[in-house]
Amino acid sequence: MIQILPVKVSADVKKGDNLAATIVSGALNSGTEILSGDIVVVAHKIVSKAEGRVVDLRTITPSKKARTLARSQHKDLRLVEIILRESRRLVRARNGILITETRHGFVCANSGVDQSNVQGASHAIILPIDPDKSASRIRSGIRKICDKEVAVVITDTFGRPFRIGQTNVAIGVAGIDATRSYVGSSDMYGRKLRVTEIAIVDEIASAAELVMGKAERVPVAIVRGYQFKPVQKSSINVLLRTKEKDLFR
Amino acid sequence: MIQILPVKVSADVKKGDNLAATIVSGALNSGTEILSGDIVVVAHKIVSKAEGRVVDLRTITPSKKARTLARSQHKDLRLVEIILRESRRLVRARNGILITETRHGFVCANSGVDQSNVQGASHAIILPIDPDKSASRIRSGIRKICDKEVAVVITDTFGRPFRIGQTNVAIGVAGIDATRSYVGSSDMYGRKLRVTEIAIVDEIASAAELVMGKAERVPVAIVRGYQFKPVQKSSINVLLRTKEKDLFR
Repeated sequence: MIQILPVKVSADVKKGDNLAATIVSGALNSGTEILSGDIVVVAHKIVSKAEGRVVDLRTITPSKKARTLARSQHKDLRLVEIILRESRRLVRARNGILITETRHGFVCANSGVDQSNVQGASHAIILPIDPDKSASRIRSGIRKICDKEVAVVITDTFGRPFRIGQTNVAIGVAGIDATRSYVGSSDMYGRKLRVTEIAIVDEIASAAELVMGKAERVPVAIVRGYQFKPVQKSSINVLLRTKEKDLFR
Repeated sequence: MIQILPVKVSADVKKGDNLAATIVSGALNSGTEILSGDIVVVAHKIVSKAEGRVVDLRTITPSKKARTLARSQHKDLRLVEIILRESRRLVRARNGILITETRHGFVCANSGVDQSNVQGASHAIILPIDPDKSASRIRSGIRKICDKEVAVVITDTFGRPFRIGQTNVAIGVAGIDATRSYVGSSDMYGRKLRVTEIAIVDEIASAAELVMGKAERVPVAIVRGYQFKPVQKSSINVLLRTKEKDLFR
């Protein structure tokens, strides 16, 4: 059996906060103790806030490219400037939607730049610079505070082609491999499996979202009881399909 | 707290089997009783088997189109014939990969046709004709057997653009809305939320996959503790993005 436990964080996260401490005390306040083997799933928003990845749009001078794009897509031009700065490639611009490839290599709307759940009408939250490193930091922070060996998954909520609606996905990992491979495995009749590689951390991100909600103060969830091999080195990069291998870019 | 409970099904599912009965007894044998409010997540494979959606490739006469496509993509031509029959549109054919839009409107590899976990080397499993109806049937079957009101989600494992690895998604639903809307909701600062609609049944499918595995006999999982409004009418169709609204087709 797997359990998904919500972790409330009552205070606003501020730049410089020790997120590991915030999460450990949030878990205690939510009635649970972090255990070794837990997967701690963290919405990137509080990571970005703790790392100071918040931009005041009033300080932004838009480039010519941003002006043109903002006009054609009917968007705030300072916001478009941030979106472009956070991207390494514009993938689609249509119907007021900007799909970009972020500097990390994620393909998503608006480079993940988000104006909800941030204080101040002119502020926007941007993704952590290196979400794997952020996850690693939280992981070692938790080890230091309560001597538990956990995995950490940092998430964002992305749309996707073909299907309506958004789902929570992983954007940074530590202590767990991003995929679970079935290559070489056989089915119950001894035949090769069609499914060869499950994006397990994306499924964990989705599972966690079920208790995280959107408007409440539950930016963290603990996934308990999932069996995985603890690893020292892991990266979200194994989930990034290159443009060359993508049939849809 | 949400729990995800694995349900083992030890015997092979055969055409004509009463899946509701299989699931209820499977749950009991796995140490749990189905409760009202549970979401019963079922891998489509056992649904297809119970509905006789298994094809013997030796009985298939490939069309000219299938022959051409099979040659260019180095695939079994009878398999390609089935894939084409199950599709209403070929979306991509490259590097030996066929992405189709199924008759239901799902965009996935090989129209969901699958040769693993089916007995007989020449057999292939195809998706249920109407997975919503299949889910409905299981739902009312469970109500009849043990007088519990559950939701049912039927799943398959799909790849996706941009990201490596497959995830479990919903292909049929009953008793639960496929999405959870946040339209009109505000964040904790009273601002409009960026995320407007979560594909909640896809997240539930992903959560369930964490206990379902691929090579074991766990084709069913119970997701317990997720709060949702029971509905009488629901359909997976609300998750289908039309070609016209898709930036990537």
